[in-house]
Amino acid sequence: MLAPVTLILGGARSGKSRYAQHLAESQPGPCIYFATAEIRDEEMADRVDLHRKDRGPRWSTVEEPLDLPVTLHSVAIADGVVLVDCLTLWLSNLMERDHDVAEATEALIATFPALAGPVIFVSNEVGLGIVPENALARRFRDEAGRLNQAIAAAAQRVEFVAAGLPMTLKAP
Amino acid sequence: MLAPVTLILGGARSGKSRYAQHLAESQPGPCIYFATAEIRDEEMADRVDLHRKDRGPRWSTVEEPLDLPVTLHSVAIADGVVLVDCLTLWLSNLMERDHDVAEATEALIATFPALAGPVIFVSNEVGLGIVPENALARRFRDEAGRLNQAIAAAAQRVEFVAAGLPMTLKAP
Amino acid sequence: MLAPVTLILGGARSGKSRYAQHLAESQPGPCIYFATAEIRDEEMADRVDLHRKDRGPRWSTVEEPLDLPVTLHSVAIADGVVLVDCLTLWLSNLMERDHDVAEATEALIATFPALAGPVIFVSNEVGLGIVPENALARRFRDEAGRLNQAIAAAAQRVEFVAAGLPMTLKAP
Repeated sequence: MLAPVTLILGGARSGKSRYAQHLAESQPGPCIYFATAEIRDEEMADRVDLHRKDRGPRWSTVEEPLDLPVTLHSVAIADGVVLVDCLTLWLSNLMERDHDVAEATEALIATFPALAGPVIFVSNEVGLGIVPENALARRFRDEAGRLNQAIAAAAQRVEFVAAGLPMTLKAP
Repeated sequence: MLAPVTLILGGARSGKSRYAQHLAESQPGPCIYFATAEIRDEEMADRVDLHRKDRGPRWSTVEEPLDLPVTLHSVAIADGVVLVDCLTLWLSNLMERDHDVAEATEALIATFPALAGPVIFVSNEVGLGIVPENALARRFRDEAGRLNQAIAAAAQRVEFVAAGLPMTLKAP
Repeated sequence: MLAPVTLILGGARSGKSRYAQHLAESQPGPCIYFATAEIRDEEMADRVDLHRKDRGPRWSTVEEPLDLPVTLHSVAIADGVVLVDCLTLWLSNLMERDHDVAEATEALIATFPALAGPVIFVSNEVGLGIVPENALARRFRDEAGRLNQAIAAAAQRVEFVAAGLPMTLKAP
């Protein structure tokens, strides 16, 4: 059975989204793909469409780049699973609009106890390279690390994915 | 006993090559060092020579920057082991010459069932920092992630090395 | 009981320092916070002061940006623990002054057998991103990887922290 809250961490092209998808599909019931990406041009719209078809008929899609807490609360279901892909894009959207990241993180975690069903978050680990020269990149790296720590502390299961393979950081 | 195909993943200066070397030497029989680096100047030739002497008499060396599949097939031996160091340099060589990376990856994996003996691949994990500003670096990061995922899926054993120490991602 | 030497590795904002602090506090006795950061302006002095208050009365603080080996030897105590935060800043201080890093690393490790009590080192893993374009950053990355490998080889316990959660790389 899926934990109430699962966090799948990994690098770029680490296979973390695919792993999260397999995890969601290991359960019976409907799967809801919660996209935080903003569709900014036609090329991206085409790509998103392709991914949607790839996931197949068991999946429905919800798109919300900013108000993750309220929307997540409204889409979570007891007999299925929500896969939020991904927290890093959500963070990027928040920062672009000067939202308060700490407040938004708190609001997200506050929804966890009352969610109707399980949720799987996908997030990028971005802090294992050299210090970025760009100040915004440094701030993003700090915020992403704090966000991952906060969600990991509230989650019941945390996995780190490398080359498509998971290492367990926390288990129920 | 060594798995037919092992993948050793790790960061820069993580000790992944040295770990792979120890793994190879833990078996009886000859060890073949398969270098994918291209020797571009005298300084590099000297460095390569030094490493060769370091490995000692049990090792022989094969150099092939591009045609990894065909050469690997021809050098693999039942009573020894081949250590390919490393996949990331091979990828870099392929990209520099505009080879089709997906095709080359497929050709490499297609050799696995018919290899005469065990092979250990060393590869860099490069996707755990901030998104690079340079477009070619972003493409390289994507291709490296995909290559690592594909080899990891086909391998029987995968280890992630940090500070010279392995974490098992997949075991036979 | 704490191992004589523990190394806590992790990325930026991975929660590695906090994890190391909890580890130190899991033992009875006094805790010594060994800061390698150099205080360069008032803002930083304020931040350091805040952290000191956060740690609470069980902690005392030692500041030494360069001569880690000698100072560590003199502050280690049998009935408490020293937490060195962090090796990466120490390396950065050494490199800025053109000290010999290999020599300094050796001197540090040479103190281990005679330390009066346990020590926990915190260090950054910085080698898991794309190759930096900046030559100094590349050199720093190489030196940091070598330093982490050397300390990990000499330590009895090594943990890799991601999102505040540890994975064991080496246990006594």
